[in-house]
Amino acid sequence: MPPIVKTPEPPYYAVIFTSMRTEGDHGYGQMAREMVEMVSKMDGFCGVESLRNSAGYEITISYWTSLEAIKQWKEEPRHLVAQKNGKELWYKMYASRVCRVERDSFFHNS
Amino acid sequence: MPPIVKTPEPPYYAVIFTSMRTEGDHGYGQMAREMVEMVSKMDGFCGVESLRNSAGYEITISYWTSLEAIKQWKEEPRHLVAQKNGKELWYKMYASRVCRVERDSFFHNS
Repeated sequence: MPPIVKTPEPPYYAVIFTSMRTEGDHGYGQMAREMVEMVSKMDGFCGVESLRNSAGYEITISYWTSLEAIKQWKEEPRHLVAQKNGKELWYKMYASRVCRVERDSFFHNS
Repeated sequence: MPPIVKTPEPPYYAVIFTSMRTEGDHGYGQMAREMVEMVSKMDGFCGVESLRNSAGYEITISYWTSLEAIKQWKEEPRHLVAQKNGKELWYKMYASRVCRVERDSFFHNS
C-alpha cells in the first residue's frame, strides 16, 4: 500500500483506529487480509494508512468520501464478525474516531 | 506516551501527519524532542499518537480542543523553523490533514 493516500478535495472523511493487540494471532492475520480485500471494493473508500510496532500498538487511518460510505462498511456483515472478534480476541483496547477532514496540504520533495 | 490519548467529548480536532523521512538525521531528533516538549505546553493540546517504522514512514496524530489551538501551534515561531527544516531536510513527502472528530468510541478489555 502507498505510504500516503491520494484523497479527494476536502471535505472528505477519515476513521482513525488506534489499538493495542492481545498476545498471539487468534485468526487475526487471516481476517485482516480478508478485510483489506473487502474494504478496497467498498464504494467511497479512498485508501488506508497503517503502521504497527512489535509491541502490538497499531494506528490505521482509512479515508472515505462520505459518512454514508463509512456506515455501509461498519454494517457490512463479515466486518461485523471481525468487530465482534476484535473485542473478544484481538484487542486489549482501541479507540475509533470518525472525522471530517476540513483541509489538507501535501509536500513532495522534488 | 500513552498509546491511546484521552480526548474530550466530540467535537474536537485531530491533525493527521503522515510522512516519509529522508535518509539520515540532519538535526531531526533534537528538534523532534524540542517540539514534543513545546507542544505539550500549548493551550488546547490533548495529546499525540505516533508510530514510525524502520523505512522512515511515520504517522503522527495530534488532538486538540479547537481549530484556534491548532492555528496557534502552526504559527509558533520555533515550530515555523521546524516546518521549514522539514521541507528542506527531513521529509521526502508528507500529508497534513486537519480534521473535526465527529464521534468516537473506546474499548478496553477488562
